[in-house]
Amino acid sequence: MLIAWTIGDINGTGPEIILKSFREFAGCPARPVVIGSRDALCHYRDRYNLDIDVQTVSSPEEARRLDASVLPVISTGEPPLPPSPGMISESAGEIAMTSVRTAVELCMSGHVHAMVTAPIHKEAVSRAGYAHSGHTGYLAELCDTPSPTMLFHDPLSGLNVALATIHVPLRSVPGLVTSMDLERFIRDLRRSLQTDFGITDPSIALLGLNPHASDGGVMGDEEQNLLEPLVESLSGEFTIDGPFAADGFFGAKRYTGYDVTVAMYHDQGLLPFKVLAFDTGINVTLGLPIVRTSPDHGTGFDIAGTGAASPRSFTEAARLAATIARNRQQTNQQINRSTNQHPL
Amino acid sequence: MLIAWTIGDINGTGPEIILKSFREFAGCPARPVVIGSRDALCHYRDRYNLDIDVQTVSSPEEARRLDASVLPVISTGEPPLPPSPGMISESAGEIAMTSVRTAVELCMSGHVHAMVTAPIHKEAVSRAGYAHSGHTGYLAELCDTPSPTMLFHDPLSGLNVALATIHVPLRSVPGLVTSMDLERFIRDLRRSLQTDFGITDPSIALLGLNPHASDGGVMGDEEQNLLEPLVESLSGEFTIDGPFAADGFFGAKRYTGYDVTVAMYHDQGLLPFKVLAFDTGINVTLGLPIVRTSPDHGTGFDIAGTGAASPRSFTEAARLAATIARNRQQTNQQINRSTNQHPL
Repeated sequence: MLIAWTIGDINGTGPEIILKSFREFAGCPARPVVIGSRDALCHYRDRYNLDIDVQTVSSPEEARRLDASVLPVISTGEPPLPPSPGMISESAGEIAMTSVRTAVELCMSGHVHAMVTAPIHKEAVSRAGYAHSGHTGYLAELCDTPSPTMLFHDPLSGLNVALATIHVPLRSVPGLVTSMDLERFIRDLRRSLQTDFGITDPSIALLGLNPHASDGGVMGDEEQNLLEPLVESLSGEFTIDGPFAADGFFGAKRYTGYDVTVAMYHDQGLLPFKVLAFDTGINVTLGLPIVRTSPDHGTGFDIAGTGAASPRSFTEAARLAATIARNRQQTNQQINRSTNQHPL
Repeated sequence: MLIAWTIGDINGTGPEIILKSFREFAGCPARPVVIGSRDALCHYRDRYNLDIDVQTVSSPEEARRLDASVLPVISTGEPPLPPSPGMISESAGEIAMTSVRTAVELCMSGHVHAMVTAPIHKEAVSRAGYAHSGHTGYLAELCDTPSPTMLFHDPLSGLNVALATIHVPLRSVPGLVTSMDLERFIRDLRRSLQTDFGITDPSIALLGLNPHASDGGVMGDEEQNLLEPLVESLSGEFTIDGPFAADGFFGAKRYTGYDVTVAMYHDQGLLPFKVLAFDTGINVTLGLPIVRTSPDHGTGFDIAGTGAASPRSFTEAARLAATIARNRQQTNQQINRSTNQHPL
C-alpha cells in the first residue's frame, strides 16, 4: 500500500513532521511517497541532521521499487530559494497546492491509496492566487464533491466529532442547521463510519444547538422542531441518541459511549476536541471518493526551523489513512464478492 | 466568619454534599450555618451513618456560639414526608427557594458574610410556583441587580471563564453581543476580580464570537466591527488581549496566561470548562451586593440517596465564598482607611 504525503507549506513545520514521521513507518506495509519539493525536504533533513535517504522518483511505481529505508519524493515544484522558516511566500503556497492537486490525481487514478496532507498557510496560498482558504474546499472542488464532512478523530480519548456546519459566521448557524438536509448528513456520516472505520452499526450522538439543548424549549426551539423529531424518526432504523446538552455531554464524558458525536457548529465540536486532543488530534475528510487525513494543527510558523515540532498528529493521521484505505478495500471486496455471488 | 449554606433540593444530593463538606471545614475560621430543612439533613446523616451533630438554631448569632464540631441549621421549612431521593416534589422546590431567600436576607443584613447554594431542581421549583429556572435569576431579583455575571472558576486548572451572554437561544447571541454594553460588562468584571479575588490588575482574554475569530472577516464581522476596536481602546487602560480564536486558545492552554477568559456565549465558555473542571468547577455570581458561590453541577437525581455524590465542588465553592468575603472586607477596610487618610 502506498500513501501520498503532501509537503504542505515548506516554510512551516510540514517537511519536518514528514521526516520525523517517516522514521515511525520503517517496515510498515503502508509506505509513504512525499509529493512536493525534494529540495525543501533535504534542506530540513540536513538542518536537523536526520539520517534519512531521500530519493526523487518520477512515479508511484518507482517509489514502490525502492528499499523501505528510503523516503521517495515526487517533485511537483522546487522553490527558487532555500526555505525561509516562518515566512509567508507565494512560491511556498504554489508548491503546497500543486502537491495537493497531484496527490488527488494519484488517488483518483488508483496509483496511491490515500493522502495525508501537511498544513498549508492560508495567506501564502492566497498570494499564489488560490481562492481556497484551506484544504477542505480545494479537495471538494478537485473531487467534485459539494459538501464533504469534517470529522475530528482523537486516537487517545477515542473521541470522534463530526461538524454539521463548518466555517461560517455564528449568526448563520441556526439558519443553516434548519435549512440543511441533516438527515442526509447523518446517513452519509453513518455510511462513512461503516466503510472507512469498519463499524457495522455506528452509534451516533447528536448535540443540541442551544445551551442545555434548549431545556425543553426555554432557550430556542430547534431541538423541539427539528432535532428531537429527527432522532426519533431515525432511532427506529439505527443507533442514534440526543439531542444532548453539549456541556454536560462532554463534561460527563458521554462521548465515550458513542462512535461519533455530531456537533451543530465549529466551536461546539472543536472547543472540547482541542482541549482533549491537542497533540494527537486528526482531521479526516469524509464523503470524498478518495481517502484523506491530516494532522489537526496549522503550519506552526512560530516554531518552524527550530526542530521543535511534534510529528505525533501527522503520524497518527498517516496511520489512520492507511487503516481507512484498508477498510475501504475490504468493503469493496465484500461488495465484489457479494456481487459475484448474487449476480443480477 | 459565618457562611450560609443553602440546602438545595432535598431529594437531590444537596444535603449529602453539605454533610460531607462540613467535615472538611472542622476548625476553619469560616464556619457554615445550613439554611433549609433540619429533618432532611438528619435523614441523610442517618442514612449514610455520618457522625455529625446537627443542631437547630434560631439565628446566626446562636450558630456562632455553638462548638465548631456542631453543624448548625436554621430551619426555614420542613417537608411533610421524609425525602424521596430522585423525586420531583413541590415541597422540595419550596424549601429550596425559601432557603435561598432567607440566605440572601441574612447576607444583605450582614448577619452572615456569604452564601453557598446547593443545587435546586428547575421543575420542582416550577411546581412550587416560581418562574425562575435557576439561582441566578432569583438572586438578581432578590438583590435588585439586573444583570449579574456568571463566572466559572476551576481551582485545579486555574481557569476562570465569564459569560457575556448566558441562557439565551444561540440565534440570539450575535444580536445580544452587538447590542449589549460589552465595555461596561468588562469594566464590571474587572472590578469584581479586584474586589473579590484581590487581583490588582486582572489580565483579561476576550474570545472571538465566530469560528477562528472570523479569520480576518472571512466568517463574520463582529470581531472587526466590535471586538477588535474594543480591545484596542481598553488596552491602553488595562491588561486585555483578543479577540482570540476560541479553539486554538483553549487547545494551547492560553487561558493559563490570563486571570479571566471572557466567552461570548454559554457553550463557548462551558464546553471547555466542563471538560477541564468537571469535578472541581465552581460557579460564582459576580456583581451582586452579596457573595454567592455554588458547585458547578446539578441536583444529581440519578445518584441521590446512594451516598455516591462527591462533595468536592461544594467544598471548593465554600472555600472560595470565604476567600471572596475576606477580600471584600479587606477592600472595604482599605477604602475606609483611604477615606480617613484623605478626607474630602
